[in-house]
Amino acid sequence: MTAFARATSVRPTATPGLFTVDLDAGWVVGERPNGGYLLAVLIRAALLGSPHPHPVAVSAHFLSPPAIGSATVRVVALREGRSTATYRVTLEQGGSGVLEATVTAGVLELGSSASWARPGWGPVELPAREDCTPVSSDVPGGPLPLFDQVELRIDPECLGFAAGRPRGRGEIRSWWRLRSDEAADPLALLVAVDSLPPAIWDVRAPGWAPTVELTVHVRAVPQPGWLRVRTYTTTVQDGWNDEVADVWDSGGRLVAQSRQLARVPR
Amino acid sequence: MTAFARATSVRPTATPGLFTVDLDAGWVVGERPNGGYLLAVLIRAALLGSPHPHPVAVSAHFLSPPAIGSATVRVVALREGRSTATYRVTLEQGGSGVLEATVTAGVLELGSSASWARPGWGPVELPAREDCTPVSSDVPGGPLPLFDQVELRIDPECLGFAAGRPRGRGEIRSWWRLRSDEAADPLALLVAVDSLPPAIWDVRAPGWAPTVELTVHVRAVPQPGWLRVRTYTTTVQDGWNDEVADVWDSGGRLVAQSRQLARVPR
Repeated sequence: MTAFARATSVRPTATPGLFTVDLDAGWVVGERPNGGYLLAVLIRAALLGSPHPHPVAVSAHFLSPPAIGSATVRVVALREGRSTATYRVTLEQGGSGVLEATVTAGVLELGSSASWARPGWGPVELPAREDCTPVSSDVPGGPLPLFDQVELRIDPECLGFAAGRPRGRGEIRSWWRLRSDEAADPLALLVAVDSLPPAIWDVRAPGWAPTVELTVHVRAVPQPGWLRVRTYTTTVQDGWNDEVADVWDSGGRLVAQSRQLARVPR
Repeated sequence: MTAFARATSVRPTATPGLFTVDLDAGWVVGERPNGGYLLAVLIRAALLGSPHPHPVAVSAHFLSPPAIGSATVRVVALREGRSTATYRVTLEQGGSGVLEATVTAGVLELGSSASWARPGWGPVELPAREDCTPVSSDVPGGPLPLFDQVELRIDPECLGFAAGRPRGRGEIRSWWRLRSDEAADPLALLVAVDSLPPAIWDVRAPGWAPTVELTVHVRAVPQPGWLRVRTYTTTVQDGWNDEVADVWDSGGRLVAQSRQLARVPR
């Protein structure tokens, strides 16, 4: 079993659709499990009993702050069809809901290519990995264990915020892989869209930017190798900001797209 | 009561959280109620008992084709907090689920402006309305009743598909308002993001492009007047395509953003 599969594993109980999980202390940012990691745990549970192997569309609303440790996952099948199936998945801790997700499952392909892409739209350009900036878990202000699991090599152009000089472009670009060097599967893509520094840090002073809603469309099974991730925000307004993420695999193929709505850091 | 409020009205039953609705024959494309219209009905039910008046983030998975006529809406409160609340809403017909949505409600503002926008990103440019192409409900291939309710004035540059010559840009731009000329409220924005011709029609031959998942982030209460809507797709791959919509009000303010994942027309 790979490190990622182990950290996101779920245990069925005697009750159909009810699972217990241990939210892993290794996938934490600040004191909270990473949102993409939580989604990977939930969707793994949802797919265990599904005739369709992959998450195609995942939407999630974050209800209350998650904590490391034991939790319960409830899966309800909403519809199981010939080519897709849809499940509702709820994460509960201490008797209350932490996160509710809905997933439509299907079959994703590996290695084919887009039959059409928007003119000018394609894999984000990144400097060579050796010219990018690695992110360590050992940073001022406290450890970021997630970055012992996830390896980022960020385009240094996007890192002005680290020196107190955000560029004002609202965009972060990075190489991405699991430190274990295992190939990212479609569940790992749920982490990839949500593990870069918030794009709004390229606009204003870093701070906690809690996600309210996150939707991920998984477009293909990635080829092995480093992924390219670009995140950006379009608009900061009335205390809210959006963040889009696009992810391409080592073959230049679009593998995931996401959008989230988050509070503006205080 | 406005025409839109009437068409999207819901009737509480003796059971808390259970509503009956009549899906209106006037908000139909082909033989099916418009997806954005369905969302407006569901979210109206969800907000009736909420301390927070507006939908901020709405995500929806389409389970089976809806039909005109009577239906049931079930609302479950997942969390009610001081500044936001989250509800699960299910539309059922004939005993099975048609659509499941989750909405996070809050308070949206009217008339303020973005504190930051991505460089180069702003209200889509459109020709004057009198130089744009109106869409009639009376088209070859059958009536499109939706366009007796919703008035589009599409940028003629995007309408090559109507003459069998899609441009290959995958983008549709249009003016948008309710024919009743009532101001669009945040629920009407759920219709606005989902009522232009599919952007993929600007790439390949028109056809039925069923939506699997649709997420809408509502960013502000629109000022009265015409809205500007731009939709585009980035990637057609393995039988799926994404569609993004951005909506601005008459004051040039971003009021809604959406993304959906749909099947490619056959």
